[in-house]
This record gives sequence, C-alpha cells and structure tokens, in this order.
Amino acid sequence: MTGYTAQDADNTAGEPGGRLSDSTRVEAFSDGVLAIAITLLVLDLHAPTSGHMLHQLLEQWPAYLAYLASFGYIGVIWVNHHQLFTRLAAVDLGLLWRNLALLLGTSVLPFPTAVLSSAFRNGSRSNELTASILYALIAGFMAATWLVLFHYLATHERLLARETPTSFFVQERRRALLGVLSYLIAIPVAALQPLASLVIICVLPVFYGFTSEGWGRKRTSGWPGTWP
Amino acid sequence: MTGYTAQDADNTAGEPGGRLSDSTRVEAFSDGVLAIAITLLVLDLHAPTSGHMLHQLLEQWPAYLAYLASFGYIGVIWVNHHQLFTRLAAVDLGLLWRNLALLLGTSVLPFPTAVLSSAFRNGSRSNELTASILYALIAGFMAATWLVLFHYLATHERLLARETPTSFFVQERRRALLGVLSYLIAIPVAALQPLASLVIICVLPVFYGFTSEGWGRKRTSGWPGTWP
Amino acid sequence: MTGYTAQDADNTAGEPGGRLSDSTRVEAFSDGVLAIAITLLVLDLHAPTSGHMLHQLLEQWPAYLAYLASFGYIGVIWVNHHQLFTRLAAVDLGLLWRNLALLLGTSVLPFPTAVLSSAFRNGSRSNELTASILYALIAGFMAATWLVLFHYLATHERLLARETPTSFFVQERRRALLGVLSYLIAIPVAALQPLASLVIICVLPVFYGFTSEGWGRKRTSGWPGTWP
Amino acid sequence: MTGYTAQDADNTAGEPGGRLSDSTRVEAFSDGVLAIAITLLVLDLHAPTSGHMLHQLLEQWPAYLAYLASFGYIGVIWVNHHQLFTRLAAVDLGLLWRNLALLLGTSVLPFPTAVLSSAFRNGSRSNELTASILYALIAGFMAATWLVLFHYLATHERLLARETPTSFFVQERRRALLGVLSYLIAIPVAALQPLASLVIICVLPVFYGFTSEGWGRKRTSGWPGTWP
Repeated sequence: MTGYTAQDADNTAGEPGGRLSDSTRVEAFSDGVLAIAITLLVLDLHAPTSGHMLHQLLEQWPAYLAYLASFGYIGVIWVNHHQLFTRLAAVDLGLLWRNLALLLGTSVLPFPTAVLSSAFRNGSRSNELTASILYALIAGFMAATWLVLFHYLATHERLLARETPTSFFVQERRRALLGVLSYLIAIPVAALQPLASLVIICVLPVFYGFTSEGWGRKRTSGWPGTWP
Repeated sequence: MTGYTAQDADNTAGEPGGRLSDSTRVEAFSDGVLAIAITLLVLDLHAPTSGHMLHQLLEQWPAYLAYLASFGYIGVIWVNHHQLFTRLAAVDLGLLWRNLALLLGTSVLPFPTAVLSSAFRNGSRSNELTASILYALIAGFMAATWLVLFHYLATHERLLARETPTSFFVQERRRALLGVLSYLIAIPVAALQPLASLVIICVLPVFYGFTSEGWGRKRTSGWPGTWP
Repeated sequence: MTGYTAQDADNTAGEPGGRLSDSTRVEAFSDGVLAIAITLLVLDLHAPTSGHMLHQLLEQWPAYLAYLASFGYIGVIWVNHHQLFTRLAAVDLGLLWRNLALLLGTSVLPFPTAVLSSAFRNGSRSNELTASILYALIAGFMAATWLVLFHYLATHERLLARETPTSFFVQERRRALLGVLSYLIAIPVAALQPLASLVIICVLPVFYGFTSEGWGRKRTSGWPGTWP
Repeated sequence: MTGYTAQDADNTAGEPGGRLSDSTRVEAFSDGVLAIAITLLVLDLHAPTSGHMLHQLLEQWPAYLAYLASFGYIGVIWVNHHQLFTRLAAVDLGLLWRNLALLLGTSVLPFPTAVLSSAFRNGSRSNELTASILYALIAGFMAATWLVLFHYLATHERLLARETPTSFFVQERRRALLGVLSYLIAIPVAALQPLASLVIICVLPVFYGFTSEGWGRKRTSGWPGTWP
C-alpha cells in the first residue's frame, strides 16, 4: 500500500529488525491461504449416492454444523487479519515469520473441528473429552500466534501506519491473551463436562467477530446493529 | 482502487458504519474463494481405471452436466461480483461481513449440485424431490445474501463510486429479490414435478449472466450478441 | 494497470461493447484458477502405504508423466495468458465471458489427462482410442476458446494497449487456429494409431511454449537459448 | 511494483532477453501456488470416525511431523521467494519459465514427504532407503531450480532493482549450490544410514529459513533473536 521499494528497503537495512518491504504480497499470500482453507471445507460434505437420501442427508447434521463453525471462524480470522493490516505501513522479516505461524494455526483448524464433529456424533464420553482437548490445544496455539504478532507490533512502531498509536497493539495483545487463557481453561472444563467446553469454544469466535476493529474502541460498524 | 489509507480510515472512524478501507483485499479474497470453488469442481470427474472406458465415461454424464452447471453458475457469480465492485469506492466492516455470507452461499453450491446429480441418476422420485428442495433452499439462501448486500449498498451511499447513483442498487435489490422468490417457488413446484423445478434452477443463472451489468440498463456488452 | 475507474467506465458505457474496466481482477481470478489447477495435480500422486515401495513407486510412472505433462501445459497456458494481458489496456464484459470459457477449458484438462494415463497403463487398444479422442476433443475446445478470445481482441481495438497493433491479434488468431485444426486431425489419427496422436498432443504445448510472445515475432527471450 | 507498461515492454523488445514486464502477476501466481500447496497439506490429516480416538490420533504422529515439516519448508520457500522479488525491478520470459520450474519443484514436495512419513511408520529398512533417496532427488531438483534462477539473475542485470548489485545473486547462487550438493550427499548417506540422511533433510530448510535475506549479509531481522 505504502509502496516500499527496494530503495527504501535498503535504506532501512541497517536498522534493528532489518529491511522493510511493502505489505502487498504478505496480504495476497494470507488471502490465498485463508481463501483455500475456507473453501476446502466443502469437500467434507458428501452427496449420498443411493438409498433414502433425505434420511442420509439429515444424519450428516454434525458435518453441517462443523462446516458452518469452521467457515465462520476462518471468516472471522480473515476480517481480523484484514483490519489489522489496514493499521500497518510496512512489513519486515520478523512479521513475515509470525504471520506464517498464524496461518499454520488457522489452516490446521478444520482438522480438530472434524475430530470434534466425529466425536459428538459417534463417540463415547472419553472420545468427546479427547476431541475437546485437541480442539482447545490447537485453537489455543492459534490464539497464541495472534498474541505473538500483536506483541511484535506493540514493540515495533516503525511498522505501524502513522495514525496507529503503539498503544493500539498493547490493547490488542490483551484481546489475544484472553483467547489463549480461555482455551487453556476449556481443557479442565472439558474433563468435567465436554459440552461446557464446547460453549467456550463456540463463544470465542463470536467475541472476535464483534471486536475485529479492536477491543475497547467504540464499535461503529454496521454489524450486526443495522442488520440486515 | 481508490487508495484508502489508514489515514483516510481514521478520518472516517467516527462516522456511522465505521472506518472505510480500500476494496483491494476483499476483492482478492473473494477472487480466491471463487477461483478455488470453480476449480475444485474437477475433482468430481473420475478417470475409469479399467474395463470398457467408453461405456464408463458415457455413464458419468450427469457428473459432466453438474460440472458445467456449477462452473457456469460460479462464473456468473464472479462476473456479477466483478461488475458490482467496479461500482464501489470503499468498503466498511458491514460490507465485509455481508460479502462473507455471499461467499458462504456460493462456495457451498457444489454440494447441493452433486446431490441433485446423484438423485437424477440413481434416485427414486422421493430422492429427486429431496435433492430439488435442498438445492432450492441453498440457492435461495445464496440469492438472499445478494439481496442483503444490495440493500446495504442502497442505504450506504458513502461506499459507492461517485458516478454510481444510490438508485442503481435499489434496482439491483429487485433483481436479487426475484432470485429469492423464484427459488422459493421452486420448492412447491418440485413437490408437483421435480423436472419443472429443474427448469427454474437452470434458467436463473442464465438470467443473472445476461443482467450482470444491472437490470433494466441497456445491455451493450459483446455477449452474446456479437458471438463469437 | 491502466487504472480504469468507475468514472472512466461510465464514460464508456454508451460505446458498443459496454463499460470498460481495469484488468487487475480478471488477471487475479485467472491466476487463482490456473494456480489451483496446476497445484491440485499433486493430489493424483499417492504414497504407497506398505509393501515393496520401490516397486510400487516405479509402477506409477504413467501418473508421473501425466503430472509433468499437465503441469507443463498449464504452465505454458499461464505464460501465454500473462503475455497476452501485457498487450491489453482494459477489459469489457465480452472479454470476461471469453476468458471464463478459456479457464473452463484449462481447468478441466487434468481430467482427460488422467483418462489418457489410465488407458495407456491398463487399457486395451479400444480404451487408448477412447482416451485419445476424449483428450483431443477437450484440448481442441480449449484451443477454440483461445481462437475466440484472439478474434474478439482483433476486432475490439479499444481494449488493446496503445503500442499493440490490431494486426498482432490477427496473427495470434492463426496461431490458435493451428491448435484447433491439429487437435481435430489428432482424432482420425488416433483411430489409425493412438500413439501417433499422442505425439501431436505432446508437441502442441511445446509449440505454444516457444511462441508465447506471438508467432512470427523474433523471439528474443532467454528460453531456452541461454539455458540454463 | 515498478509499473512496467506495454509501452516500456515494447521499448525493451529489441534487447537480448526480450520484453520486460511488471512482476505483479508472477508474484500473484507464485503466491497462489505456494498458498495452495501449503494449505492442501491439511487434507492428509484424517479424523478417526470411531473407536478409541486418543489412541488413533496418537498413532498418526508421523503424519503430524510430515505436515509440520512440509508447512515449514513451503513457508521458508515463500519467505525466500518474497525476499528475492523485493530485489527485482522487472521480469522477462526467461525468468517466468525458471520461476515455473521452481514452483514445480515446490508444489510436488508434499509427495516425497508423504512417502518418507509412510516409510518410517510402516516400512522396512529398504523402504526407508527408497523414500530417503526419492526425497533427496526431488528436493535436490528443487534446490537446482533456485540455482538456475539465481544464475539467471546474476547474469541479467537489467532485471534487478537499482540498489541490488549483481554480486548479490552471485553470492545467492552459492547458497543454492550448497543445497544441491547437500541433497546429493544425502543419497549415499541414506544407503549407509537412512536416519542420518533425515538429519540433512531436516537441517537444510532451517538453514534457508535463517538466510532468507541472503547469505553472508548481517542478518538483522527479528527472527529468532528477539523471539517472541
């Protein structure tokens, strides 16, 4: 966006943190990964090939739920990622690696979601426990990658757009920390009652959807206040 | 396109609807989702591994039809999405969420298409009914996401390009409403005669293909008048 | 590239062929489709799960050949598409639809390639004939979409970059026509000798790779003259 | 980035190496291929459908390791590719073809990784040998495509950004040569001891991750020195 060229890059090569570059490509690559992750989900919905289709379609309901939940969560992550990058002026190598970790956490998310859906359809109580813990661990890792990214931005002012105060990412860091802690709490909760941990798991993406412009800022967006 | 920067964004943060931003990334993400959805369709075409190939290839004809129909429909949606965004100057959070709903409706479309193809190949009359209703419900949901999006644009003038009158999206809203109503009508029609509902299902994408520049405008494009 | 805005678009709305717009998005969407088609090919390579792996890996050789051939062909198509769009200044609806047809022909190509690979591994002479004809038909369709696209550009000068003479696409049209005719000839050749039609099928992408800057122009690119 | 237009392109058409063009599309296409390759990896992780899930999930550990290794390697390649293109001002046909070869080597990488993971889980010593050699051959080919690309850039100064000396890519060429040689050495090592070749295979991506800004330059980036 800000048009960092190789020349600017080399002018900044001596500074701590290394050469700066334009954020266009890291946004395009992230868009690609998130677009693929969100679109691949449909491969888990299978058309029945014969027999009583209505019955077979209805029996698949946990797969539909998992599809919607995964689509929603990756959608929320994309919106958060989009809003985050409107706050940046440039990227450096440190940011590229941290963004890659975030994409790892996000693109693997459909796997624990499928395990969860499978456990609550066919599984015993012990399978539900296993699946809930697996989900909480991976989602907690994903939340931790946001924490690491926000911490990096809170301490690397030169990457921020001129209008974004460093304090913005200090506050965002707290928002990510809440996610990490919530997923950690979901683990012992799952041992007591797997369904209760599901509630935590389902509420968090909704929270991040509502706070995608930053926590504690007056939310003025059209969602969902002015719906439709 | 219009180059909204973080600075412009913050200047607009206090306005109802929140910060504006450039539409580049939402277009790139949508292009990614639609490109993947349209390309994944080929995974449903299977090469026979042995036996009398000609016979096996010919027997797959409903899969080819479903492939072409899905490719055509997603292609039409992409062209409509493309033409829509040439009318916008900026995006806000409300638009991002509504666009995400539209992508959900579109990227799930190959699933009811596969069910429909399976039902008309192997199924009984009751399976054809099930598949037609499923398709009409999901395609109706997809049409409803366009309605919601056009309604949002008709009531948020600040997102529009200077040359686009608000009345443009008032008219577009009617075009989407026609889709929702047609898919709703396809449901009782399917109960009477599944093949008749198929006709409605096949005609609508063609209609949206022909009106991708907006309904009621003199269509001057080269398609298909000057074909080839 | 040329930065067509909604304003320019409306200024051109009355001209025959309709509103013009920037080519950025159609390039991004095409890049997405071609990138996915070329990358999905790897899903056809399967890791043996047990037994004598070396033997099983060697037995898969037609799959490797099909992989390389498909990768090469889609790669050639991308390079041709890339070079084509450096010649354009703007796009209109007519071009969008023709480009979509081209993407249809390209993204379906892995299917007849897999049939061909399967036929020459396991099939009888009649299966080889079936597979060769299927391939020639689909590749011929794909070549025909290039012909239609080049014809459109040869007759719509306002889409071309200022430095590109209309005569350029008149010549390109001949290059595409050669492809259509060659694939048509491959059909009766296959009936006589399937292997001979394979030669035609393999030579054509190489020809298009070498002439990606246009036929009859002095090729000055570094490939493959200055290899490596 | 540097905004090469068709006009600049034709002004350069007579020079050895042919017409120059903007690097935007080759970056977008490469981002697409790498984003898809890195995201498709999750399809190899399967949710158990019944039975003792914890046991079945734990048994899949080589698949998790292969997932992380492939994700990490493709991530490293993307960062290297990103940093490389910040050094370029334009692309020509010779670069497009060499970049395509690089994408071939990268997008096929998940296949030998899956073979390796399968061999070390179920295989005999001879299978481990087969899988290690296959991996070393393909990864060596991939490293060779970088060598060819760096050689091309070291000898085509007109493609480089003004601030990038030709000597930069002379040095990069050595970095790629080290990769080719290391993978070649891994082959006889595998014959003696498959696990020892695994060490070489695992260390190389880490090396390329740490030297993504170029070998021998004072690395000043935030990774991993300032972690987190």
